[in-house]
Amino acid sequence: MTNAMDAASLNRFMQAEFPQVAADFRVERVAPMEADIRMLIGEQHLRPGGTVSGPSMFALADLAMYAVLLGMIGPVALAVTTNASIDFMRKPESGRDLIGYARLHKLGKTLAVGDVLIRNEGSEAVLARSSMTYAIPPKR
Amino acid sequence: MTNAMDAASLNRFMQAEFPQVAADFRVERVAPMEADIRMLIGEQHLRPGGTVSGPSMFALADLAMYAVLLGMIGPVALAVTTNASIDFMRKPESGRDLIGYARLHKLGKTLAVGDVLIRNEGSEAVLARSSMTYAIPPKR
Amino acid sequence: MTNAMDAASLNRFMQAEFPQVAADFRVERVAPMEADIRMLIGEQHLRPGGTVSGPSMFALADLAMYAVLLGMIGPVALAVTTNASIDFMRKPESGRDLIGYARLHKLGKTLAVGDVLIRNEGSEAVLARSSMTYAIPPKR
Amino acid sequence: MTNAMDAASLNRFMQAEFPQVAADFRVERVAPMEADIRMLIGEQHLRPGGTVSGPSMFALADLAMYAVLLGMIGPVALAVTTNASIDFMRKPESGRDLIGYARLHKLGKTLAVGDVLIRNEGSEAVLARSSMTYAIPPKR
Repeated sequence: MTNAMDAASLNRFMQAEFPQVAADFRVERVAPMEADIRMLIGEQHLRPGGTVSGPSMFALADLAMYAVLLGMIGPVALAVTTNASIDFMRKPESGRDLIGYARLHKLGKTLAVGDVLIRNEGSEAVLARSSMTYAIPPKR
Repeated sequence: MTNAMDAASLNRFMQAEFPQVAADFRVERVAPMEADIRMLIGEQHLRPGGTVSGPSMFALADLAMYAVLLGMIGPVALAVTTNASIDFMRKPESGRDLIGYARLHKLGKTLAVGDVLIRNEGSEAVLARSSMTYAIPPKR
Repeated sequence: MTNAMDAASLNRFMQAEFPQVAADFRVERVAPMEADIRMLIGEQHLRPGGTVSGPSMFALADLAMYAVLLGMIGPVALAVTTNASIDFMRKPESGRDLIGYARLHKLGKTLAVGDVLIRNEGSEAVLARSSMTYAIPPKR
Repeated sequence: MTNAMDAASLNRFMQAEFPQVAADFRVERVAPMEADIRMLIGEQHLRPGGTVSGPSMFALADLAMYAVLLGMIGPVALAVTTNASIDFMRKPESGRDLIGYARLHKLGKTLAVGDVLIRNEGSEAVLARSSMTYAIPPKR
C-alpha cells in the first residue's frame, strides 16, 4: 500500500479548500494508513482555566481522519464523517500543541474506518481517543 | 422532578462563564430532563458549499447536554464530557439555525447520560443524533 | 411511509432464517420507522445476581434495529450492523422480560441509522440506550 | 506498572465466577495495560453462512476489557461496562478462533477506558474495533 498524497500535498490541499480550518492544523507525517496532525493551539480553542475544549479536540480527531484518508485516496474534498465516538480521558496541558495520531483500520470503496489518539506534544499520556467512519463519495 | 435553573438563568450563567461560546448559542426551553438549544449559525460554522461543519454540530450537541444537565443540578461549571458518539445523517440547510433537542436518560451522582437530536429550525428531519456522558464533580 | 412487513411476518421470517436467535425474541409491534421487540429472559442471559448480561442487552438492541429496518424494507437477510454504541445505565430487574424500543432516524439506500431504548416490561426507566448503523446490501 | 493477576489467575477467577461464560473464552496473555483473549468459536456463536454474530464479537470485546482491567486491579467481580462503541469492518472467517487484543488507555479510580481490536487467529486484518468504559466500584 502506498500513499496518494504526502504531507506537503495535504497541507496545500487543505489550505486551498478549507483556509479557515487549515490555519489551525498542520499535517506532520503521512505513512500508509497513518497520519499525524498537529493542532496549533490558540485562544479560540481554550476554556476557562486554559484547557482545550472538547469540540476543539473533536475537530482535531475529525481532521486527522480526513488527512489519513486523503493521504490514501487522494484529494476527494467531499468525503464526510458519518459516525464518530470519542472518549475524553485527561485534561490537555495549557500552552502546548496537540497531536492527533490517526490510523485507518479499513479502507473500503464507500466507507473508511479508523482511530485517532490525541496527545500533548512530547507526552505519552493519551488525552482522548476517537473512532470515526467516513463515507467516500462514488467516483464520477 | 423540577428544574434547578430556567432558560434565562442558564443563558446568564453561560454568558458569564463562557462568553466566547455563549455568543453562538441560546437556551430556548428547559423542562425536567429536557432542554432545547439554538445555534445561531454564522460564517465561522460553515464549510464550503454552505453546510455546517461536523465539529460545529458536535459543539451544539455538547452544549445542549451541558444545558440540560445544569438545568437539573444548577450552576456546576466543572461538569465535563467523558464520552460522546455522534451520527451525521443529513446535510444542514444553509442559512438556517440549528436546534439541539437534549434529553437526559440518567442523572446519577457522578454520571449523567443523555441524547441530543439536531434539526434545522422548523424542520422534522433529524440531521444528527448524539449520545453523551458527563461526569459531575463531587460536591466540595 | 408504510411498512413492508408486519409483526407476524417479521416473526415468521426470523424463525425461518435465525431459528436459534428467534427463540429468545418476539416482535411485538411494528409501525412506520418503529418497532418494539421483547426479549424472553432465560438462564442463558443472566449473570450472577440475576442481572441480564451486557452482551445480551446488546443482542436485543441489535435485533431490534434489524426488525425496525426489515419492517420498512422487507426481508433482506443480509443487512449487517456496521457500527453500534451503547450506554448501560441501570441494572435490569431479574425475572422480567426486556423490551427494546427501536426507532429509525434515517433510512437511506445503503445505510440505516437508528436508536434503541431498553426497558424492563412495564417500567419507565431506561436501562440502556443504543444507536446503530446497518449497511443495506445493494439490490441484485 | 505491574499486573495484579496473571493469565492463569484470570482464567481461574473467570471459571469460578462466570462458569457459563468462561467456557467460551481463554485469557492468553497479560501484560501491563494489555491482555489478549481467545474466543473458542462454536455453533452458538455463528450466523447462517458460518460467520460469527455481532453480539458474539461484542461479548469478546467486553470480556477482553474486563480481563485487561482485572489484570491490573485484581479480582473485582463487580466492575461493569458503562459505555461501548464497536465498528464491525470485516466478516470473520468460519472455523477459526477470534482473538481480542485489549489495551487500557486510562485506569482511574472510578473509570477505566480502553480499546479492543478483534482479529482471526493468525491474521493481521482487524475484523472489529471497540472502545469501552468500565466503572470500578468503590472499595468497601
